[in-house]
Amino acid sequence: MKKIIVKSYSELSELTASIVLSEISNDRRSNVALTAGSSPKGTYEILAKWAKAYPEMWANTSFFNFDEIENNSHTEYATLGALQSQFFQPAGIKDEQIFHLNYDQYDEIIANQGGLDLMVIGLGGDGHFCGNMPIATSFDEYTYKIPIKPEYPWYGTFEGMMPKEEIPPYFVTMGFKSLLRVKHLVLIINGVSKAKAVKELFSREISNEFPATTLRQHPNLTIILDEEAASEI
Amino acid sequence: MKKIIVKSYSELSELTASIVLSEISNDRRSNVALTAGSSPKGTYEILAKWAKAYPEMWANTSFFNFDEIENNSHTEYATLGALQSQFFQPAGIKDEQIFHLNYDQYDEIIANQGGLDLMVIGLGGDGHFCGNMPIATSFDEYTYKIPIKPEYPWYGTFEGMMPKEEIPPYFVTMGFKSLLRVKHLVLIINGVSKAKAVKELFSREISNEFPATTLRQHPNLTIILDEEAASEI
Amino acid sequence: MKKIIVKSYSELSELTASIVLSEISNDRRSNVALTAGSSPKGTYEILAKWAKAYPEMWANTSFFNFDEIENNSHTEYATLGALQSQFFQPAGIKDEQIFHLNYDQYDEIIANQGGLDLMVIGLGGDGHFCGNMPIATSFDEYTYKIPIKPEYPWYGTFEGMMPKEEIPPYFVTMGFKSLLRVKHLVLIINGVSKAKAVKELFSREISNEFPATTLRQHPNLTIILDEEAASEI
Amino acid sequence: MKKIIVKSYSELSELTASIVLSEISNDRRSNVALTAGSSPKGTYEILAKWAKAYPEMWANTSFFNFDEIENNSHTEYATLGALQSQFFQPAGIKDEQIFHLNYDQYDEIIANQGGLDLMVIGLGGDGHFCGNMPIATSFDEYTYKIPIKPEYPWYGTFEGMMPKEEIPPYFVTMGFKSLLRVKHLVLIINGVSKAKAVKELFSREISNEFPATTLRQHPNLTIILDEEAASEI
Repeated sequence: MKKIIVKSYSELSELTASIVLSEISNDRRSNVALTAGSSPKGTYEILAKWAKAYPEMWANTSFFNFDEIENNSHTEYATLGALQSQFFQPAGIKDEQIFHLNYDQYDEIIANQGGLDLMVIGLGGDGHFCGNMPIATSFDEYTYKIPIKPEYPWYGTFEGMMPKEEIPPYFVTMGFKSLLRVKHLVLIINGVSKAKAVKELFSREISNEFPATTLRQHPNLTIILDEEAASEI
Repeated sequence: MKKIIVKSYSELSELTASIVLSEISNDRRSNVALTAGSSPKGTYEILAKWAKAYPEMWANTSFFNFDEIENNSHTEYATLGALQSQFFQPAGIKDEQIFHLNYDQYDEIIANQGGLDLMVIGLGGDGHFCGNMPIATSFDEYTYKIPIKPEYPWYGTFEGMMPKEEIPPYFVTMGFKSLLRVKHLVLIINGVSKAKAVKELFSREISNEFPATTLRQHPNLTIILDEEAASEI
Repeated sequence: MKKIIVKSYSELSELTASIVLSEISNDRRSNVALTAGSSPKGTYEILAKWAKAYPEMWANTSFFNFDEIENNSHTEYATLGALQSQFFQPAGIKDEQIFHLNYDQYDEIIANQGGLDLMVIGLGGDGHFCGNMPIATSFDEYTYKIPIKPEYPWYGTFEGMMPKEEIPPYFVTMGFKSLLRVKHLVLIINGVSKAKAVKELFSREISNEFPATTLRQHPNLTIILDEEAASEI
Repeated sequence: MKKIIVKSYSELSELTASIVLSEISNDRRSNVALTAGSSPKGTYEILAKWAKAYPEMWANTSFFNFDEIENNSHTEYATLGALQSQFFQPAGIKDEQIFHLNYDQYDEIIANQGGLDLMVIGLGGDGHFCGNMPIATSFDEYTYKIPIKPEYPWYGTFEGMMPKEEIPPYFVTMGFKSLLRVKHLVLIINGVSKAKAVKELFSREISNEFPATTLRQHPNLTIILDEEAASEI
């Protein structure tokens, strides 16, 4: 684990964009998984500028999503959709460069493309990473299903997101064993609202009560935080 | 070979700095060889800012030089000296992070540190790379000695650099076989003065009359050019 | 995790020796950590034959031990000593090729040599791997100290090994985080006496009650078992 | 370049089989290119035994050929056919694990599978490797076409192989730039009939008069020779 605390969100975005740009610049197939959400917003603004200006530079890169709400009638909830509007569309990434998370054989599909070179993820305030949610997470899984049940502390997130009758019985996420195969894992965290979660990330015992604690085991993890996010450590 | 033509020198500097920053950000020992000269000036300005602000981020990186004029009485000619004043000093890189090119066992020393992860080089107007000079270059060498002889077309460079009696009998450079072991090789070229050399780089047959032609064989070479440098291709 | 069940101990030894030989045959520095004990006996017989016959083939390989009983007055207990007599001496491996586990900076030392390319380990009947003993193990450690206390179920092993007054307060082992950085981890298990442990290895939840369960998370683990060891799965 | 001279052809076969077995044993997709011909005969006998006994061990390996005579009406000349009868069929390798050399996009296809991890090749008595034949070879090519012309010194090979009217205008081979991307390249050479070629391999200047001289540049090349093949060096 390498922890880099930068002064501002704009520096966090610059550094994260640098890591993606560098991966893209290699003269080989690159496989990259990116997170949706608010943390990478600044990163994607920088990257979209480069992607629009120099599309051929991105031609041998493929993109993968790492969690998904499978809900055929309501594709608007999909994380891939968020990535589309946040990054792929502004950046002009072509559909054939994008792999859709597929429950049955996702890890095998990834392996057959040469494995993931880079993954950028965020930290949930409740300690989740990708779709590995508190209590529901197993650390012994590749891509797997997380059941969505009222007894989980995060059930309310789904209630807030969609009408109760549309909440699917499970969603799908890459598990920690999938992440251990990623050559470079980058965790970005910004803002004072994440300061308490950051403190827990570094101080709690590894357990699925705060799933991101297990990330400390990853063989090549870079954590980039702005000073606000790091204010309690 | 991946060729990326950017609009300006400042974009060239941003992209090159990104590649170095990304390498540095890994949670493992990084071994990096950098070029002196005018092309990386903008890159080093960006990097020095990051290195001054976040020195602990650079703590597990080591730096290597790739050519050297061994002249004990006149260390001012040394390329390591140029790197010192251009980058290592402004960036606050510590002496113990810097490996000095050593003729006898340099490739073995590098191998024993885990090999070079990244090398950034420039292109000579006459087609040289590192110290692999026209006519004098062999493509069958690791680190080796290049004799400095009046019959070589580039002898004048040394005459211009120092009094004739101080010109040493040879200098030392990493050869192409050393470079083939570098995991990511980045060649940066800027300015209209390099446009003709760039044209030759891509069009001439591989031969030691224009040594950089052999770089086209490298398994992971990224060439970053600004539009001026690319104006004749 | 890749599980390979072979018919006999001699095939287990052949395949394990192949993996070591292949690593050695690369034209680069190789860093290898090997286990002492009874399981690799057949492997070392094959390897010693190759090492005696072709010592120059082994010249760019370094060896590391992964656990150690630090007891200055009683070096006869040391696992490095066991490796010496089992393999290094019969194979003619030179002292300068052998790195001794050193508590303070072992992971940093390994990183500075380029990391471990290969590690061969065994499985304890009680589920330990390297020196990661039941109950005493933490999965959140690089190289660390395991206290030796009467309340641990394996305390008797030490009582059987040496007089009570010579039992040191702790021993040292590479932890799971160190092992996650090993590029290829090979676990060899033979004999009917391990059959029950093998069953638990594959069926128990990940927990430090049976520490080897965590190995299932490793990104490149090969488990080689003979049919006897696999007889209960 | 790492040179390993073993006492006998049977040791050459054992060591080469070890390298392939080790690659196969990894818990990841493996991509392997193998040579046809007489040198690997002993290697394939060992490997076929392992493949027949433990087919699931080979399930995540793909195989690639590196040169091919494209002659639709006479597939009996194909090197893939030779590999089929020499190794794939006796070993029980499934068709879907075998990639057929395809002129147009072969290097791109290989890149999209994650690149070649291992390639085993032989040495032609005239210095050819794969289909890189004397005089006709360019060192600046990925997969490319070699014209078959009467003026080449090796034209007779084709005349001996098939009726003149069936000699195709060219054949296809992976070029040296393709081979520079292979992570581990293994060259096996046996028998006194190759002794003179071996001498030339190590002593001649790099040139397409003896194409294999360029292999000395490869960043991870292991040359395994028996004593007969090494008798003139």
